Amino acid sequence: MKLIYTGKTKDVYALEDGNYLLKFKDDVTGENGVFDPGANTVGLTMEGAGKAGLRLTKYFFEILKEKEIPTHYIDADINNATMTVKPATVFGKGLEVICRYRAVGSFLRRYGMYAEEGQALDAFVEVTIKDDERQDPPISEDALDMLGILSSAEYKVLKELTQTIGHVVKDELAKKGVELYDIKFEFGRVDDGAQIVLIDEISGGNMRAYKDGQYVEPLELEKLIVG
Amino acid sequence: MKLIYTGKTKDVYALEDGNYLLKFKDDVTGENGVFDPGANTVGLTMEGAGKAGLRLTKYFFEILKEKEIPTHYIDADINNATMTVKPATVFGKGLEVICRYRAVGSFLRRYGMYAEEGQALDAFVEVTIKDDERQDPPISEDALDMLGILSSAEYKVLKELTQTIGHVVKDELAKKGVELYDIKFEFGRVDDGAQIVLIDEISGGNMRAYKDGQYVEPLELEKLIVG
Repeated sequence: MKLIYTGKTKDVYALEDGNYLLKFKDDVTGENGVFDPGANTVGLTMEGAGKAGLRLTKYFFEILKEKEIPTHYIDADINNATMTVKPATVFGKGLEVICRYRAVGSFLRRYGMYAEEGQALDAFVEVTIKDDERQDPPISEDALDMLGILSSAEYKVLKELTQTIGHVVKDELAKKGVELYDIKFEFGRVDDGAQIVLIDEISGGNMRAYKDGQYVEPLELEKLIVG
Repeated sequence: MKLIYTGKTKDVYALEDGNYLLKFKDDVTGENGVFDPGANTVGLTMEGAGKAGLRLTKYFFEILKEKEIPTHYIDADINNATMTVKPATVFGKGLEVICRYRAVGSFLRRYGMYAEEGQALDAFVEVTIKDDERQDPPISEDALDMLGILSSAEYKVLKELTQTIGHVVKDELAKKGVELYDIKFEFGRVDDGAQIVLIDEISGGNMRAYKDGQYVEPLELEKLIVG
């Protein structure tokens, strides 16, 4: 087992059988000790955040498996905070795909001239480049295609998958009285690019969830949904 | 004749017959005395810039008229630096539509992870919101549609018109040995939204043009093309 990547919130190991092992860490993104799913820096360490994130991820990935929505998930070991996944290659040097149901965060910072804070959005999908130095700029379908990052045909698959998975998560949260404002996904290609699948995780660290108008912290969200 | 809008580089008057009169000023956008077509501030005043801009605009708008490409242009009075145009309404509070043939400026600042400076781009179209406070953020087709600024059907017309007009300008410049790197347009609706037309101007202040690898200043461009 060989460490091949050290991420902000998890490490990636290559297994002998060709699969990957993700080790979930207790670090979460944010700034100055305040959690922010859109931040590029590790803002704080929360004990149990890794296992909680994995528990939620396992919960959602197994629902997706039942619904035959493609992901890289194979299985998870909660005690060791690890998840075994199929090897996938990311688009370019990595993209983030956001699905928005309410106008908050960077959407509002960009389009505040036309949107009210908290305004309902109809599963709006946008793609950003993972590029800390350039503050994860948004990128259009045309630019993704032209720069050879993602073809227009792949973009359509990505957008549809994003909305489908977003709705699954939104519905699950709604069962517990929690409202999903937005969620961030990562996708990759498996089987030599033959299929696009959801990769990474689905946890409190990747979404903004609210209950009775109050923001739900990642650890609390895990307790509400799978506790 | 009534002043209805004071812009950075021109003023707009309402005429009694329902048309508008644009008065071209000698102010050009830039920062700290350096011309920059992408800037949001008036950086410098260049004597003759207004008339030169109008001369180029008249030149290009009349070519577009011959080719039956829709614009708001009616006629121009070079001596008074004025142009008479059809009344048009802008999309939302105004959009800028950029057509790029080389990776420079804000494109490179955003996508420098994937593009080399000066790399050829295939008439790449992007739309930005006119919003000085938020530094003219780029906006996608989906966001434009969702926020009620521009429908997806209108976006397609806009993109096609942008590429068509961009090519006309690029070809005209090429005849004089000048290469167009990028150009910025504005569009509006006329006849109660029945038609989308090019509005504003086509001048050195809206484009980056190079000759023998050297940037061509707006006043010099006017001399090269119509002088």
